[in-house]
Amino acid sequence: MEKVTIVVHSGDLDRFMSALIIGNGFLAMGAEVTLYFTFWALQRLVRGRLCAAPLSRMNFFGIGAWMMRRKMRKAGVASPGRLLADFRAIGGRVIACEMTMEIMGIMKQDLDESLIDEFGAVGLYVHETLGASKTLFI
Amino acid sequence: MEKVTIVVHSGDLDRFMSALIIGNGFLAMGAEVTLYFTFWALQRLVRGRLCAAPLSRMNFFGIGAWMMRRKMRKAGVASPGRLLADFRAIGGRVIACEMTMEIMGIMKQDLDESLIDEFGAVGLYVHETLGASKTLFI
Amino acid sequence: MEKVTIVVHSGDLDRFMSALIIGNGFLAMGAEVTLYFTFWALQRLVRGRLCAAPLSRMNFFGIGAWMMRRKMRKAGVASPGRLLADFRAIGGRVIACEMTMEIMGIMKQDLDESLIDEFGAVGLYVHETLGASKTLFI
Repeated sequence: MEKVTIVVHSGDLDRFMSALIIGNGFLAMGAEVTLYFTFWALQRLVRGRLCAAPLSRMNFFGIGAWMMRRKMRKAGVASPGRLLADFRAIGGRVIACEMTMEIMGIMKQDLDESLIDEFGAVGLYVHETLGASKTLFI
Repeated sequence: MEKVTIVVHSGDLDRFMSALIIGNGFLAMGAEVTLYFTFWALQRLVRGRLCAAPLSRMNFFGIGAWMMRRKMRKAGVASPGRLLADFRAIGGRVIACEMTMEIMGIMKQDLDESLIDEFGAVGLYVHETLGASKTLFI
Repeated sequence: MEKVTIVVHSGDLDRFMSALIIGNGFLAMGAEVTLYFTFWALQRLVRGRLCAAPLSRMNFFGIGAWMMRRKMRKAGVASPGRLLADFRAIGGRVIACEMTMEIMGIMKQDLDESLIDEFGAVGLYVHETLGASKTLFI
């Protein structure tokens, strides 16, 4: 079985969505997948923020992200929350970066713990990559 | 033979160029290389847009990208169009992301089909990575 | 022994730091690690610039990066300069991208050579990835 480890660093809607879609794609092909959320991506796992991600380009005070979300809905693409719930339901693992929590002053109770399997630092990430045949940084 | 799969997500001139230069570099070493164009990178494959990519930083209303292109020319670096044509001429494969096309309302006829080998979604990308020893997300 | 090759493209404080922290993390687990600095990341290796990296988001005329650096210090995270010195001290290799130097008009003497092991172009990067089990682009 292939093992895939993805660092999700960006909180921008387009990159965040790509990470979830690729993660689900690998799971669907029978791979074992771990997403390691850090920096701006981890901020998206704070309660209530999952649907408020800006775009990496053409943001125009939030209009870009709003329009992209609308277009995604029209194209039948699931929301970030739905994609992440699916990811975990079909066996994907989610790790929250503890160093980011310390830097950004995020407490465990601030995070939506129903979305997270484990808390850890870079050592856990590196350990997860052992035996992984694919690694991405998004 | 090594197999390399690169997701090209960014349409910014510097990242887009890096993807093409790295893709060509791997081809030159005898690897099998697939570029999967998605989001802003796919937008660059719309007819006539390949030379209009902005920079990821210091853009100053397009002056940054214009200056970077000028400096690249002076340093003997080929244009994005030239690099992509070379990539395909020496055996590289280009896949266009169908989900991006649906979200952004891009039709097949909008794209420069002379640059594209195949159209597909995340399942095709994941399938391409089977047996790949290197994967990047740019 | 695992071999890891990371292209460090972004000069933004958060991505630059992630690259160094991940590089050191892999070294600590006994891997052989090469960082290939290109574009904005290479600019950070110009003398005196290592501590002046902006953030990839929420920059607010430098206040964002200043605040992030302060928070990192408070969280006990080492500075970029310290992380890079540690990286090389425990056996990590640093390559500076010659094409970037040509494009950006950076001379060898502009760079802090105490931070760099080798100068090379994409061919050297690709050669470095031979036998690498992990590759990232940051």
